[in-house]
Amino acid sequence: MSQTVVPKPVRTAVPQVSGDLYAEVQTFYAHQMRRVDSLDIEGFADTFTEDGAVVHAGGNRQSGRAEMVAGMRASLPRYRGIAVRHWFDHLLIEVDGNDADTVRVSYYTLVTLTDSEGKVSFQPTFTVEDELVRRGGQLYTRERVIHRDEPVVAG
Amino acid sequence: MSQTVVPKPVRTAVPQVSGDLYAEVQTFYAHQMRRVDSLDIEGFADTFTEDGAVVHAGGNRQSGRAEMVAGMRASLPRYRGIAVRHWFDHLLIEVDGNDADTVRVSYYTLVTLTDSEGKVSFQPTFTVEDELVRRGGQLYTRERVIHRDEPVVAG
Amino acid sequence: MSQTVVPKPVRTAVPQVSGDLYAEVQTFYAHQMRRVDSLDIEGFADTFTEDGAVVHAGGNRQSGRAEMVAGMRASLPRYRGIAVRHWFDHLLIEVDGNDADTVRVSYYTLVTLTDSEGKVSFQPTFTVEDELVRRGGQLYTRERVIHRDEPVVAG
Repeated sequence: MSQTVVPKPVRTAVPQVSGDLYAEVQTFYAHQMRRVDSLDIEGFADTFTEDGAVVHAGGNRQSGRAEMVAGMRASLPRYRGIAVRHWFDHLLIEVDGNDADTVRVSYYTLVTLTDSEGKVSFQPTFTVEDELVRRGGQLYTRERVIHRDEPVVAG
Repeated sequence: MSQTVVPKPVRTAVPQVSGDLYAEVQTFYAHQMRRVDSLDIEGFADTFTEDGAVVHAGGNRQSGRAEMVAGMRASLPRYRGIAVRHWFDHLLIEVDGNDADTVRVSYYTLVTLTDSEGKVSFQPTFTVEDELVRRGGQLYTRERVIHRDEPVVAG
Repeated sequence: MSQTVVPKPVRTAVPQVSGDLYAEVQTFYAHQMRRVDSLDIEGFADTFTEDGAVVHAGGNRQSGRAEMVAGMRASLPRYRGIAVRHWFDHLLIEVDGNDADTVRVSYYTLVTLTDSEGKVSFQPTFTVEDELVRRGGQLYTRERVIHRDEPVVAG
C-alpha cells in the first residue's frame, strides 16, 4: 500500500451487491409499498410469506398473514382522510452466505401523511431490518423488524 | 422446494428489471430533475420528445415542447425566492413487450420548497406514470401523467 | 422507427452507468450515512481517504480525517436529543475517463431531525458533489463539496 493515498483497512468491508439484485429488491419494495399505501391490506399481507412476521417499533410482534391483516384493519381509522406514503432510502442488501434465496436488507423509512387540503405531516423516522426470501422467482418478506430512530445522545 | 414455505401464487408476478435498466432510468430522472429544479425550462422540455405531453394532476394536458415551455414560464413567479427540489422513490419499471425502447415507469414524488431563510415546506405528494422512449441511446419522456395522492377513505 | 418522432440531439448526452456501479455507489452511501447518522465520528471519517476533504456550504474546508473528526466533535451538541437522518436522491455517477477507480457523483440531500417526541423538522436542502476513489475494492470519499440549494430567482 502506498502510504500516501491508500487508507488503512480500519473498517469492515462493505458487502457488494450486484446491480440486478439491487434492482430486484428495490422493485419488490416499490410493489409492496404501493400495496400498503393504497390500504390494500390483503395485497400487502401477500407480499409476506405465510408465516411472515412484523415486529413493530413498540415491540409488538405480528406473526402470520392473518394476524397482520387483523392488525392493519384495526389501524385503518387512522388513515381516514389521509394519503399515506412510505419513502425508503439507503438500502443495505446482503445475500445469506448459505442460501442465495435469503436476502437481508436494512433501510431508512420516512412516512408522509397528506390530508385532503394537501398539508403534509411526518411520522418519526424509522430504520427497518427485513429478511426476504425468494420463492418461485419472487421475493417475499419473512421477517420485518422496525426500529424508531432515537437520539444517540439524550436531550 | 419444501411445500410448507411456498406461498400460494395469490398475487401478480412482479416484473423484473435488470440492474442496467434500473440505473439508466434513475440516471435519466436525475438529469431531468436537475433541469426542472434549476428552472432550466428549455433544458427540461428537451428531455421530452418533440410531441411529448404532460397531464397535470388537475387534468390540464400540455402537448408538445412549445406548450410545455409556455406553461412553465407562466408558473415561474411561484418559484421567486424558492429553491424547489423533486424527490422520487419506488420506481416500477416495465419494458414494453413489443418494443424494447419503450419503457413505462411509475414513481412517488415529494416536492420540497426551501425559502431563502432555509425554511422547508412541502407540496402534497404525487404518483407519476411516465412513458419513456429511447432514441439514439438516450431516454426521453413521451407522456407523463401526474396523480395527486388522495386519501383512500374520505375524511 | 418513424423519423417523425426522433428528437433532435439538442442536449448533451447523459453518461450511462452500469447497474453494478450504481448499486456499488448507493451501497457505499448507505454505509457512510449510517456512520454519520449514528454519530460514529471515527467510523464516518474512515469512509474518507486519509487526505479526504469536505467543503461545507459556508465555504469552510476540512482537510484530512483528523480535521474532520475535530469539526464533527465540535458540532455534536447540536444533535443532543435529536435523531438525524440524511436522505439522498437523484445520483449522477460518472467514471473518470482516465481512471476507472475514480468516480464523480452528485446528489440531492434532505436532512431530517426527529426529536424525542417524534416531531420531525428539516434542514435546508443541499446538492453535494463527491469525488470517490476505489482502493482495495472499496470506495472512499476523497473530496466532498456541499452546496446549499438557493432560489434561482431572488425573492
